[in-house]
Amino acid sequence: MDQRVLEHAETLVDWSGRIEDGDDVVVSVGEGAHDLGVAVAKKIGERGANMHVTYASEEMDRAYQRAHDGRFDVDPEFELALYERADSALSLRGTRNTATTVDIPEETQQAFGQAREQIREARLATDWVSTVHPTRALAQQAGMSYEAYTDFVYNAILRDWESLAEEMGQLKEILDGGSEVRILKDGDATDLTLSIENRTAVNSAASVAYDSHNLPSGEVFTAPADTAGQVVFDIPMTIRGTRVENARLVFKDGVVVDWEADAGEDVLTTIIETDGGSNRLGELGIGMNRGIDRITDQILFDEKMGGTVHLALGRAYEACLPEGESGTQSAVHVDLITDMREDGTRLLVDGDPIQRDGVFRWEDGFEE
Amino acid sequence: MDQRVLEHAETLVDWSGRIEDGDDVVVSVGEGAHDLGVAVAKKIGERGANMHVTYASEEMDRAYQRAHDGRFDVDPEFELALYERADSALSLRGTRNTATTVDIPEETQQAFGQAREQIREARLATDWVSTVHPTRALAQQAGMSYEAYTDFVYNAILRDWESLAEEMGQLKEILDGGSEVRILKDGDATDLTLSIENRTAVNSAASVAYDSHNLPSGEVFTAPADTAGQVVFDIPMTIRGTRVENARLVFKDGVVVDWEADAGEDVLTTIIETDGGSNRLGELGIGMNRGIDRITDQILFDEKMGGTVHLALGRAYEACLPEGESGTQSAVHVDLITDMREDGTRLLVDGDPIQRDGVFRWEDGFEE
Repeated sequence: MDQRVLEHAETLVDWSGRIEDGDDVVVSVGEGAHDLGVAVAKKIGERGANMHVTYASEEMDRAYQRAHDGRFDVDPEFELALYERADSALSLRGTRNTATTVDIPEETQQAFGQAREQIREARLATDWVSTVHPTRALAQQAGMSYEAYTDFVYNAILRDWESLAEEMGQLKEILDGGSEVRILKDGDATDLTLSIENRTAVNSAASVAYDSHNLPSGEVFTAPADTAGQVVFDIPMTIRGTRVENARLVFKDGVVVDWEADAGEDVLTTIIETDGGSNRLGELGIGMNRGIDRITDQILFDEKMGGTVHLALGRAYEACLPEGESGTQSAVHVDLITDMREDGTRLLVDGDPIQRDGVFRWEDGFEE
Repeated sequence: MDQRVLEHAETLVDWSGRIEDGDDVVVSVGEGAHDLGVAVAKKIGERGANMHVTYASEEMDRAYQRAHDGRFDVDPEFELALYERADSALSLRGTRNTATTVDIPEETQQAFGQAREQIREARLATDWVSTVHPTRALAQQAGMSYEAYTDFVYNAILRDWESLAEEMGQLKEILDGGSEVRILKDGDATDLTLSIENRTAVNSAASVAYDSHNLPSGEVFTAPADTAGQVVFDIPMTIRGTRVENARLVFKDGVVVDWEADAGEDVLTTIIETDGGSNRLGELGIGMNRGIDRITDQILFDEKMGGTVHLALGRAYEACLPEGESGTQSAVHVDLITDMREDGTRLLVDGDPIQRDGVFRWEDGFEE
C-alpha cells in the first residue's frame, strides 16, 4: 500500500476526526475508497475506538432510488438510531464514475433527501469529516493521469496542518477585527467592496477541533454584507453539469443587479433567480492551501487553493454571524472563484493590503 | 449485468427474505459482492422497503482487529441500536481472498466475537438471510474456472424453491413420524443407527418463512440421539485449514468411542475432545438440492447436495428439540459428509428405505 494512504488515514483519524478510545465511529466507504478504508480501520483500531462500516455505493443508491415509487419512509428509525448514538462519522469518498447518479430523476433525489432530514441532521451533529480517496474517475474529471492526480490529492491533504492552522489564525484575526474587504484586479474589471463588520471568520483547518469538516481544507471564510461593485470569476468551473467561464457580477447595495458570462450564463441566471437570497453573497472565502497548485474542477480542492478567493451566492454559514442575525438565507450556496495571482491584484482589509498578486503579507515576496 | 444476478436478488428478497413495503433492511455487502448488491438494492427499492448498507470488508476487519489492543468494548450501542430496530438483515458474501483473515491472532478474533454477542443476537432475531455471490477467489477454492463456478452457484441458487419445499416437506413428515434412522453403505463399513424419537425435522427451504436462513439451502435436518455403530465420511473437506479425508467414527450409546482418518486425524481429535458435547451428534442432515452436482469444499454448498447425508459433531439446533429438552450442547458444530450415491447404499427410517443409492423414494429410479 502507498505509504501516503496510511498518512492520509492518520491525518483523518487524528488531526481531523480527533478519534479517541471508546468513540463510536461510523466509517462510510465509497466504491473506490477501499484502500483508504483499510488504512482508516487500522488507525481506528489503534485508537481503540468502535467502528461500524457503511458502503456508500452510488450504483446501489441509483438502483434503489430508481426502482422505488418515490414515496420514501421518513427517517427510518434503525438508521436514525445509529447516527444519533454515533460520536463521529468519517466519509471516505472516491467514486468510480462521476456520472453514476445522473439518471436518477431529479424529483426522486429530492424526495429521498427530504425524507432523510433527521438522519442527515443526526450525522451532522457528530464529529463528522468528509475526505476523498484518489480514483481514476476523479483523475479523469480533473483531466489528469491517475498518478499525477494521486500526487495532487496527497499534496493537498498531507500538509503540516498545525502550522497552517496558525497561519490561517492570523488572517482570521485580521478579518475579525476589520470592517471592509476590497478586491481589486485587472484595472477596474474587478473592484468589489464587502462589509464584514461584526462578522466572525472561520479558520477552516480540516479538523473538528476548528469546526472544519473537510479534508483537505485550508481556507478562512466569513459572511459578507452590503456588497458593491463588480467582480470577474476567471477560474472556470462546472456548475450543475454546465461549464461556467468568466462570470461577471455587478452588485449594488448587496444585491446582484447585472450579470453575464462567456459560457454558462443560463445556469448563472437560474441560480441568481432561485429565491430571495440567491442574488446576495453568503460567503467570502480566502484559499490558503499551498499544496493545491492547480484547478481540477472539483470544488473541494479548487476553493481552497492558495492565491484564490471565492464568493458564494446564497446561504451564509451560521458560525460567521453574530447572535440573532440571520445573514443571507437561500436554498442555494454556489461558489465562484477568482484568481488573485495576477499582477496588480490586491486584497485589502480596511484599506491595508493583506495580499498582493496572490502573496499574503506574511509570506516571502509580499514587499513591493 | 448477468441476468442471473437479478434473479438471485429476486429470489433472495422475495422467496428467502420476504421483504415487504416499509421493512427496515440491513444489507451487508462483501468485498466481491458489489454486483449482487446493486441488484438487491433494485429489488428492495421495488418492494418499497428501507435500506441501510454495510460494507463487510474482511481486509478492514483484519486491519482493525490486528491494530486493536484486544480489549474490545462490549456491544457498542450505536450498532446494537441499528440491529435491534432492523426487520431483516441480508448478508451478501463474496470474498476476494479466502485467506484474508488467517493472520488475525485467534485470541483477538475470539475476544472480538465475544464482545459482540448481543449485536449478533439482535441480528439473528431479525429475518436474516446469508447468501453468496460468485467470485474468482471462491472459484479458486473450489478448483474451478470462474465461469464454471458461476454456473455452479446459480444452478444451486436458482431453483424452483416452492416445489423443492414441497418435496422436502414429504421427508420432514417421514422423519417427524419416525423413531429410528439407519444408514447403510459399503458392506458394513457404514452401519449407523440414530434415534429421532420425539424430534422435529426442519424443512430448510432457503426462506425465513421456513426458519431457513441460507440461500442456497435444500436440506432436511433433525437432532439425533443414542447413535450407535460406525460411519465413514468419504467426502473430503477442509476443516480449520486442514484437509480431512475418510474420517471413520465409531459410536456407542450416543458417544464417539473410536475414530481415525486417512488425513486430518489430529484436527478430528481436537474437535471430538473439545468439550462434553463434541463427542456426540447434534445434527443429521439430508441433502436435497439437486442443483448442486459436485463437491467444492464449501460447506454451504456441499452439505446441501442431493444424494449426500451429513452428520455434525456438537451443538444441536433448538428447533429440532422437544420443549424442555436441551439436546447436545457444545461450543462446536462441525459437519461431516458421506456420499449416498454408491451402489448398495441405503437410508432407512424404521426399517423402510427412504433412499436407495442416493435416489429418494419419490424420485425416478428408486425401484429396485
